[in-house]
Amino acid sequence: MVHIPVGVSARHIHLSPIHAERLFGDKYQFTVIKPLSQPGQYAVEETVAIVGPKGRFDKVRILGPVRGRTQVEISRTDAFSIGVNPPVRESGDIYGTPGVTIVGPKGEVKLEQGVIVAARHIHFHTSDAIAFGVTDKQMLTVRLNGERPLVMEQVIARVSDTYALAMHIDTDEANAAGVRTGDTAVIIRA
Amino acid sequence: MVHIPVGVSARHIHLSPIHAERLFGDKYQFTVIKPLSQPGQYAVEETVAIVGPKGRFDKVRILGPVRGRTQVEISRTDAFSIGVNPPVRESGDIYGTPGVTIVGPKGEVKLEQGVIVAARHIHFHTSDAIAFGVTDKQMLTVRLNGERPLVMEQVIARVSDTYALAMHIDTDEANAAGVRTGDTAVIIRA
Repeated sequence: MVHIPVGVSARHIHLSPIHAERLFGDKYQFTVIKPLSQPGQYAVEETVAIVGPKGRFDKVRILGPVRGRTQVEISRTDAFSIGVNPPVRESGDIYGTPGVTIVGPKGEVKLEQGVIVAARHIHFHTSDAIAFGVTDKQMLTVRLNGERPLVMEQVIARVSDTYALAMHIDTDEANAAGVRTGDTAVIIRA
Repeated sequence: MVHIPVGVSARHIHLSPIHAERLFGDKYQFTVIKPLSQPGQYAVEETVAIVGPKGRFDKVRILGPVRGRTQVEISRTDAFSIGVNPPVRESGDIYGTPGVTIVGPKGEVKLEQGVIVAARHIHFHTSDAIAFGVTDKQMLTVRLNGERPLVMEQVIARVSDTYALAMHIDTDEANAAGVRTGDTAVIIRA
């Protein structure tokens, strides 16, 4: 029984190059402060505010590098708090999702769409996937042995040569289970 | 397969008679606004603020009737937000739990202990317990079929002639599963 490291994703944003410049100014260079579990991904020092119909969050962490499209990932609790109703989606799948206003030091972006509650998933390096006997997009059942043990069904396997083994859940899921980044999960059914 | 109605508990407080008077004044009578799922339990119109080391919540709902000891029930997300670290406990089991300051219109209470994250549980009327074949304090495994299906282990059965059939979870658990009050749960292992 191999334990998979859990990473808890707090609310964060991925910016497109155009939105990054509108929020921070032309040719702005972000300051990297921390590498993330996935190779090449990192958190930067800068933050933005996101504003919904019923509230706002200041100091929302920006993750880099820039992506093709801006995407805001929040928990369901966050969503109720600012008055938006995003669906649970895989990263990148933002069609028809709600928007939000993003406020940076040099400008604002009225995002038309891009707010999601990220679907829980496990990143597997291709070699991990072979070892675990799973394939890309497969749905897994996973136990989180936290303070309040939970079994999560429909956990999506994502397989790539660019990934490192890690299960990503959001703060609602982490708090429901009583787990934190660095705790581990076990696949109980593949 | 019998479906059990789910009730989602937002943060709330039960007051002792002494604390109720200190917060609202001598012989204060609360205004009942809504009966709860459990017979004899109700929400009142009045609210209090609760204040922790790192933040506060205004308008925290008071549930009645008064109880022997004051108890504050919050989610793990709430707990991080105000800077307290309550354990997951059954209602009433507050020994060694942290306190918080409670602010009412007529006074304040510095609660020494009484803040918990309520352990998920199912209330069974004695007749329901017979029908389901469960006994008081038994641990059950329950599936919540929300937007993100979850199986919860260690769900406590509570059996009494004064209970009505209902599963109680907190907002973190509800949001992790994507369920709301009025959705249903299924016992998959007793």
